[in-house]
Amino acid sequence: MPTYRAPVEDTLFVLNDVLNIQRYNNLPGFEEASPDMIEAILGEAGKLAEEVLQPINRIGDEEGCTRHEDGSVTTPKGFKEAYDTYRESGWGGLPFPEEYGGQNLPATLATCVGEYVASANMAFGMYPGLTGGAVAALLQHASEEQKQTYVPKMISGEWSGTMNLTEPHCGTDLGLLRTKAVPQGDGSYKISGQKIFISAGEHDLTSNIIHLVLARIEGAPEGVDGISLFVVPKFVLDADGNPGERNGVSCGSIEEKMGIHGNSTAVLNYDDATGYLVGEENRGLKAMFVMMNEARLGVGVQGLAQSEVAYQNAVDYAKERVQGRSISGVKAPDKKADPIIVHPDIRRILMRMKSFNEAARALVLWTALKGDIHHRSDDAEAKEAADELMGLLTPIVKGVITDRGFDNAVEAQQVYGGHGYVEEWGMSQFVRDARIAMIYEGANGIQALDLVGRKLPRKGGKAVQAYFAEVGALADEHMGNEDLKAFAEPLKKGLGELQAATMWLMQNATQNPDEAGGASTDYMHLFGLVAFAHMWLLMAKAAQEKLAQGANGNATYYENKLATGRFFMARMMPECGMLRRRIEAGAETMMALDAEAF
Amino acid sequence: MPTYRAPVEDTLFVLNDVLNIQRYNNLPGFEEASPDMIEAILGEAGKLAEEVLQPINRIGDEEGCTRHEDGSVTTPKGFKEAYDTYRESGWGGLPFPEEYGGQNLPATLATCVGEYVASANMAFGMYPGLTGGAVAALLQHASEEQKQTYVPKMISGEWSGTMNLTEPHCGTDLGLLRTKAVPQGDGSYKISGQKIFISAGEHDLTSNIIHLVLARIEGAPEGVDGISLFVVPKFVLDADGNPGERNGVSCGSIEEKMGIHGNSTAVLNYDDATGYLVGEENRGLKAMFVMMNEARLGVGVQGLAQSEVAYQNAVDYAKERVQGRSISGVKAPDKKADPIIVHPDIRRILMRMKSFNEAARALVLWTALKGDIHHRSDDAEAKEAADELMGLLTPIVKGVITDRGFDNAVEAQQVYGGHGYVEEWGMSQFVRDARIAMIYEGANGIQALDLVGRKLPRKGGKAVQAYFAEVGALADEHMGNEDLKAFAEPLKKGLGELQAATMWLMQNATQNPDEAGGASTDYMHLFGLVAFAHMWLLMAKAAQEKLAQGANGNATYYENKLATGRFFMARMMPECGMLRRRIEAGAETMMALDAEAF
Repeated sequence: MPTYRAPVEDTLFVLNDVLNIQRYNNLPGFEEASPDMIEAILGEAGKLAEEVLQPINRIGDEEGCTRHEDGSVTTPKGFKEAYDTYRESGWGGLPFPEEYGGQNLPATLATCVGEYVASANMAFGMYPGLTGGAVAALLQHASEEQKQTYVPKMISGEWSGTMNLTEPHCGTDLGLLRTKAVPQGDGSYKISGQKIFISAGEHDLTSNIIHLVLARIEGAPEGVDGISLFVVPKFVLDADGNPGERNGVSCGSIEEKMGIHGNSTAVLNYDDATGYLVGEENRGLKAMFVMMNEARLGVGVQGLAQSEVAYQNAVDYAKERVQGRSISGVKAPDKKADPIIVHPDIRRILMRMKSFNEAARALVLWTALKGDIHHRSDDAEAKEAADELMGLLTPIVKGVITDRGFDNAVEAQQVYGGHGYVEEWGMSQFVRDARIAMIYEGANGIQALDLVGRKLPRKGGKAVQAYFAEVGALADEHMGNEDLKAFAEPLKKGLGELQAATMWLMQNATQNPDEAGGASTDYMHLFGLVAFAHMWLLMAKAAQEKLAQGANGNATYYENKLATGRFFMARMMPECGMLRRRIEAGAETMMALDAEAF
Repeated sequence: MPTYRAPVEDTLFVLNDVLNIQRYNNLPGFEEASPDMIEAILGEAGKLAEEVLQPINRIGDEEGCTRHEDGSVTTPKGFKEAYDTYRESGWGGLPFPEEYGGQNLPATLATCVGEYVASANMAFGMYPGLTGGAVAALLQHASEEQKQTYVPKMISGEWSGTMNLTEPHCGTDLGLLRTKAVPQGDGSYKISGQKIFISAGEHDLTSNIIHLVLARIEGAPEGVDGISLFVVPKFVLDADGNPGERNGVSCGSIEEKMGIHGNSTAVLNYDDATGYLVGEENRGLKAMFVMMNEARLGVGVQGLAQSEVAYQNAVDYAKERVQGRSISGVKAPDKKADPIIVHPDIRRILMRMKSFNEAARALVLWTALKGDIHHRSDDAEAKEAADELMGLLTPIVKGVITDRGFDNAVEAQQVYGGHGYVEEWGMSQFVRDARIAMIYEGANGIQALDLVGRKLPRKGGKAVQAYFAEVGALADEHMGNEDLKAFAEPLKKGLGELQAATMWLMQNATQNPDEAGGASTDYMHLFGLVAFAHMWLLMAKAAQEKLAQGANGNATYYENKLATGRFFMARMMPECGMLRRRIEAGAETMMALDAEAF
């Protein structure tokens, strides 16, 4: 059976030593987040993940959710009890305002907690995760009355939330959506239509489910400019604000999926369901987009989380399983064979995962911190700069970390040989669960287009220029440092490839838009490698400083950190040149065939 | 529901125009394989795959195999009827000698049939596939009496076969195996022990199952030099050679696996089962190794097969699903959106798959043909050269084609967006089924070690030098050809990277064996790219010749072939440089951490 140990020490290293989160204690909510408080919260979150959520991960996969004839859905054994524990401990309110019952702590901290939860039980984590997303949308776009009505009970976990975008004929292209909203003259609307792939769309964990639904008000324009956002509770609230009459929304079926079996993915049929407009008419898509950066960051975290837990289990197996002898001489003479961790090709897999996980964790938190600065700073310039950088890095966090997170789950499974293919050992579940993160919240191809088509050119390329300047300056600063050169040089080289690819895109994509689409995925991955290398230089610098200060008896930790980073720079960064060359090969050969030729 | 169309035209192009299989009609069995005969056989095989096997692929996945309390196993609905059809049509005997009831046709042709079967229904194909492997082992190592006893009924499909290597504590490292064989004085042995992961180990398709079992004769040396091969029938044969008394082998359980649910993966418990020695005492592993090249080729075919069927379904979806508008202008003005095949990032995915599948098919058949030449030629030099080249390319066919075949199944699933994650659409099954091919018959890391540690240095590097010379000469020959330059130049460049990496390995791995292991997987993939590019130059040359000859009204086919190849050369070959740089980065950073640091 797989196990999980929350990587609290690594998270603390990133927060305290790499990002120096205490620098930001002038921001609201950050002043409470003292080092001791952070450590206590992460410790508790780790315990929740390890002791409550991980033990029911396999059963969630095996049993899945059950839809009954009346349309109700039962979650797997143990999920309700675990949810009650989660709710009672107040985890749902961590980053939200105190006035609605939250704790107003940094969202960065909630991101750390989210990683542990998603490692321990990704399917479970989606129930509160979706609620958090819906809360964020309501906080940004709903009226004060709506906020007072829904948010406190969602933050407390009494009610949960969902996001309803996709319809059978449209996912990416929401302009095609058909769900309609008919105004009733009393401020409410009747919503009718079918939504599919609604995660946590129906379940038995909470007394109400608050659906946020994109629909088209009768007579609204076609396309994306005619979409509005509605709140549609499963039970319409009575005069006291408690769940009353059943609303006209029902679960038609739940999908049988490759993974995340413990989360119900519902087809929701809206049949004159009572809904209430959130924000302005016809501005629904925009409202969704504003919060999408945060939701996408959350999916990137899932990619990291599955990579981390798969890695941990691969390490355990590689230390226990004896098979063959080390190519460089017997390592365990007392055994009939050496543990497979001695074999270089197994090391290669483990080092790839380890060096990715640590960089990805840093990048996720670096990006989350930008989000906090954006939301909480009162310095207009810093606010905007942080928002732009978060927007720029979000498709990379989502697209690259979920692509590589999945690959890592596959590689971790490979370490187990035949046992990896047998469900009982749990490695298959990591692969199957991780797979969805590449698809939902915008398939990774869409992330790449968002990066190349929207985020790069935004405001004349202001964000990307600022980013290149920051990374380039950091690399230059440490180029002369004997110990950090192994980090600064490959970073500088990778950045050079990325800048050249960016220039190539600017020159070619304007003349032929297919060049943007044809280059986008490779470009996103090139950007991702540079972003990871940036994190590695920051981490190496922090580790070096700690070592210089005596390392508090923890020198091995920092030396291992440096060694892990050196692997990343030496063995992962050569991909940059290939990605650039692929991009510069252009889209011509890609677009040469007629559709009939496939 | 997924569909499948056997790519008969492509197979014929490779056999007839690229490999010029008619050149070999002086070899036994090849003389019957006239172009018309080949086309007829492939057409029939295609129909079998499309009409009999593909329709039960989903049900095989959903229903899986069922083990009953008495240890018997029932295959999914429809498998028995499909197996009867397969058996009655005589497919099992295609490449085997006529004296045992076979048709003695080229194994290359059986490889083509194997691709179609594995695309249509991989789990089904393993039942006859394993039988074929067992037949090949018996033909090479068994006594004439044993051959007469078992082979005809295995070739006819009346009985099936299995390979029993793995035990709970050993897979890769067979030297550790414990199953024991006690001589009974009458030429038979009593076999006891437990074997796991036995594909097709127990089922209801045939009246007997002939297990080939590796075991250690009492008193034999430890390690790999004490392993012998035994034949152990499920039912001991009576005096007439018919299944009689139940032997002491029983199915203890079947595994719940990630995929290939339609194939039973059995734990087989041997308890004083009657077995008969095949070949010499203590030479069992060697006997297995001889046939392993062919078995590994078969697994490479599975990688191609899943990539092909996943590709076909991704194409169908990309043509039907409308979503968004083409970045270069509306393509389907009569629809609300364009089919997604217009989008460059979708094209990228489809072209990667298409250009891989066509090259992989050529490489598989090129390698299979070497096997035929080895077995059937009477020219000693040609025989040996073919055997060496087959040995060299086999780990590449197995390791690279299954790695990339799996990646392609994942990418094909990605084309479907959310629908790809829902089991009903069938794309998840391709991913889950394809996954095992990277693991069994020697995990791909083992293939890489086989290449670097065994196949490269064999006979002083004779095979690899011959291969480099052949590929280099071909590239040089066409460097001046305006149309083929786009193929010859990247091939030459890739070959240069491969030769440099080979040199680096020779220089460094002798001093530090960890360098061989550390480089092995990247080296195998570098070799694979060069082998694919080699196939692309051969295919481009054949297509160009056909076009020059008027192309028989089929010019579009050959022009598309050239266009597909140009994509491969432009967008896939840049990986070569990266792989070389990774290799040359060395194993130092990979091996730097202590095991405790993970």
